[in-house]
Amino acid sequence: MQVIGNPAALELGRRYLDRDLNRSFRLDLLSSSSSSDREVDRAKELLRLYGPQGDKPCQIAIDLHSTTAAMGNCLVVYGRRSADLALAALIQARLGLPIYLHEGDQDQQGFLVEGWPCGLVIEIGPVPQSLLQACIVEQTRLALEACLESLGKVLSGLLSYPDHLVVHRHLGSLDLPRDASGRPAAIVHPQLQGGDWRPLKAGTPLFLRPDGEVLRFEGQEFPVPVFINEAAYFEKHIAMSLTSREVWPLAREWKGALQQLVGF
Amino acid sequence: MQVIGNPAALELGRRYLDRDLNRSFRLDLLSSSSSSDREVDRAKELLRLYGPQGDKPCQIAIDLHSTTAAMGNCLVVYGRRSADLALAALIQARLGLPIYLHEGDQDQQGFLVEGWPCGLVIEIGPVPQSLLQACIVEQTRLALEACLESLGKVLSGLLSYPDHLVVHRHLGSLDLPRDASGRPAAIVHPQLQGGDWRPLKAGTPLFLRPDGEVLRFEGQEFPVPVFINEAAYFEKHIAMSLTSREVWPLAREWKGALQQLVGF
Repeated sequence: MQVIGNPAALELGRRYLDRDLNRSFRLDLLSSSSSSDREVDRAKELLRLYGPQGDKPCQIAIDLHSTTAAMGNCLVVYGRRSADLALAALIQARLGLPIYLHEGDQDQQGFLVEGWPCGLVIEIGPVPQSLLQACIVEQTRLALEACLESLGKVLSGLLSYPDHLVVHRHLGSLDLPRDASGRPAAIVHPQLQGGDWRPLKAGTPLFLRPDGEVLRFEGQEFPVPVFINEAAYFEKHIAMSLTSREVWPLAREWKGALQQLVGF
Repeated sequence: MQVIGNPAALELGRRYLDRDLNRSFRLDLLSSSSSSDREVDRAKELLRLYGPQGDKPCQIAIDLHSTTAAMGNCLVVYGRRSADLALAALIQARLGLPIYLHEGDQDQQGFLVEGWPCGLVIEIGPVPQSLLQACIVEQTRLALEACLESLGKVLSGLLSYPDHLVVHRHLGSLDLPRDASGRPAAIVHPQLQGGDWRPLKAGTPLFLRPDGEVLRFEGQEFPVPVFINEAAYFEKHIAMSLTSREVWPLAREWKGALQQLVGF
């Protein structure tokens, strides 16, 4: 089943009309009887049509995204659901993609894939919004095929899982420096632009003020930045997110959860 | 005088509300007494405020643009107005920027700078829409400074013009191949993406169909493509424009026109 997430926004070349669809799958929004936001209506419709109890029920949602950040070809997983982690590990073993594990962020909730028992985002960039670039289309196809082939092997039982999973676990986000009225007072430093997945070091330039002053990273740990200067996150006050690279052994219950889900 | 061209669209992160502001400076639109398009109203307002007969009259308009195409740092000149060509030659002599000379296109009319006696566009890319990237900001600053310094020298008379001007003269535009219902049936070929300013040769891949078929350039001349896969031109049915690289000797009347304009 292939579905355009937000066809009304696509038609207008915008990410959304009233609110970000990929922040609209929150229980409080979905359980409300009336909404003034078209994206909440669309979220309810998608679940009514394709949700696990929908008209054409689906168990797994693969959400295809592009980004203006230099994320390359990667996966985004939300929280630590066993089946998600098993599927992400299988795709990572095939293509070597990095995985951004987003969790524990009170300001960012209600992601689409959370409406299904299993799901992840394929995220490709950098590419401008609403623009078809052949390389980006091809990268998306590669990741999607790896995903479908992995699920096919789970179904057939012809499968070996990797021993471990490398995740970049979300730690928090940095906003641009702002002035007293809330307007940005600096931009992402040119040396950091495009530096997604490259660990920050003490002294790494982060932001550049109009007068030339450079604001540098001063932490003791060395987090890995992702989604640097993503256009859609400007309004969310996210200039980049910081992650911790971690190697996790593959848990037996992850495999069981995914295999149960696909009915093997 | 620094002015945001279309503040209402900027606020919403869009190029325009009702119609492209940079196609709204057409005499028929500007002379109509009423308009339903907010951009035509804004065009009239800009001319009322800053036009050559405006409240704060200006003689020269420098229009700052960014593009999703890999245009680098370049100038766009419309038609062959003498003062424009003189100013473009001065900036080109300082920075070596290529110049796209847009003319004779019945489908694309009413550019902002045409509302002033002299004007040109500084065009920088690739960069996603509505995104501040430090390198792009810096390139814009460089081109604008070169422009202002050149005008300063015209004013002071301390000036030597180059002997010639290199232009890429507009020949026409290519649209994406489309199916019977008008939807795109191919995308820009990955080998052409980012190939702005690089002459096409017989056999150069232009477009890629979903089934893998490659559509190639088959002309006898070797035009130079510009604005390859610019997001805002998708709706204008322009996948790229084709130009002819030409070296023009600098005409005496060009210098005179610019010097007269700045009152030297």
